[in-house]
Amino acid sequence: MSEQSLEFISPDQLLAHLKWRYAVKKFDPDRKIAPDVWNALEQSLILSPSSFGMQPWKFFVVNNPEIRQQLLPFSFKQAQVIDASHLVVLALKLNTTEADVDYYISCTAELRQIPAEKLEGFGKVIKDFLGRMDADGLKIWAKMQCYIALGQLMTSAAHLGVDACPMEGFLPSKYDETLGLTEKGYSAAVLCPLGYRDPSDPYASYPKVRYSYEDMIEVI
Amino acid sequence: MSEQSLEFISPDQLLAHLKWRYAVKKFDPDRKIAPDVWNALEQSLILSPSSFGMQPWKFFVVNNPEIRQQLLPFSFKQAQVIDASHLVVLALKLNTTEADVDYYISCTAELRQIPAEKLEGFGKVIKDFLGRMDADGLKIWAKMQCYIALGQLMTSAAHLGVDACPMEGFLPSKYDETLGLTEKGYSAAVLCPLGYRDPSDPYASYPKVRYSYEDMIEVI
Repeated sequence: MSEQSLEFISPDQLLAHLKWRYAVKKFDPDRKIAPDVWNALEQSLILSPSSFGMQPWKFFVVNNPEIRQQLLPFSFKQAQVIDASHLVVLALKLNTTEADVDYYISCTAELRQIPAEKLEGFGKVIKDFLGRMDADGLKIWAKMQCYIALGQLMTSAAHLGVDACPMEGFLPSKYDETLGLTEKGYSAAVLCPLGYRDPSDPYASYPKVRYSYEDMIEVI
Repeated sequence: MSEQSLEFISPDQLLAHLKWRYAVKKFDPDRKIAPDVWNALEQSLILSPSSFGMQPWKFFVVNNPEIRQQLLPFSFKQAQVIDASHLVVLALKLNTTEADVDYYISCTAELRQIPAEKLEGFGKVIKDFLGRMDADGLKIWAKMQCYIALGQLMTSAAHLGVDACPMEGFLPSKYDETLGLTEKGYSAAVLCPLGYRDPSDPYASYPKVRYSYEDMIEVI
């Protein structure tokens, strides 16, 4: 990695980008995200941190306009689902088994060129952690990780000047059915349409509603 | 906001920062985050998106070294809790009531200078959404939002050249007790120590373990 690529941004720049972002209500349907920018956003999903690095997720990018139209009624008719340049469905892995842990450990050993036996203790910690959860607990745990990826995706988009809208208002079971997620072992956790704000979206200029510093942060 | 402050970053810069970050195992205990950088990180928490913008969270910053020492045994003795420059406990709001929705709506109306009646429909949507969850469901919902804030915080830190380590491995009930969170109406959801990596941390140079593009992304 070259020195130049590690030129970090300033606190002012960070805040300018985070204040610039808002949950877009109306996307410009004619503006598409350029391939190099989209590639970086996909990579921001792949590079997201997760519990133990287990990545209990998969990201479905719905480009097919007919399928996006089918999803509209299952999204309380929120037009972002059809108007945004890209629609990401962040999906949680339905079941995480001991075999998944073994696979993860073997990938880690291979990539880092260390004997898998050296990672046995780490694998056991993960198995114990997962073993304390029932099937619903595992789904909630996986869903939480999707929310980290959502946070990283939205923040990354803001720094690239790409708009986004996190969406919990949709019917997961209908998404699962329409996209065939269940048989693939996943379920829709949260949505993130991405693209560019329409100049006519009044929400772009509304001040952000945030509680006071004193209400949100306490120093101990 | 000046034009200059809205100079977005390039896809290459984004990826360089995201690849630079890793879950720090060993912080340099002597390096502290400068006040202007820390202020931006606190603001990144406050500016985090959340479900309906409801912000069902509070962020506790534990600076007191004695209290951080007390937290060590409740953190499986992971030294990041004491060595990092700053320790953030992202805490979920234990209960979100209709009164909270009314308060949020009144804040929105005041800030945006619109009559509260105009937001009644929006308030009802939120109340209906929350009303479909039981007490545990509300806690899980609030915890998910904390994970968005965690994602935004970690990604923001990476762009500023600040190191972090997301931590789920701790005992929430012991944290709640030590920090007096329960009586304040919160519970520890997830931790994020922040600071600077120690040059001797071998994990900094380990390659990231991420599954393949094909396994993580599916285009429909």
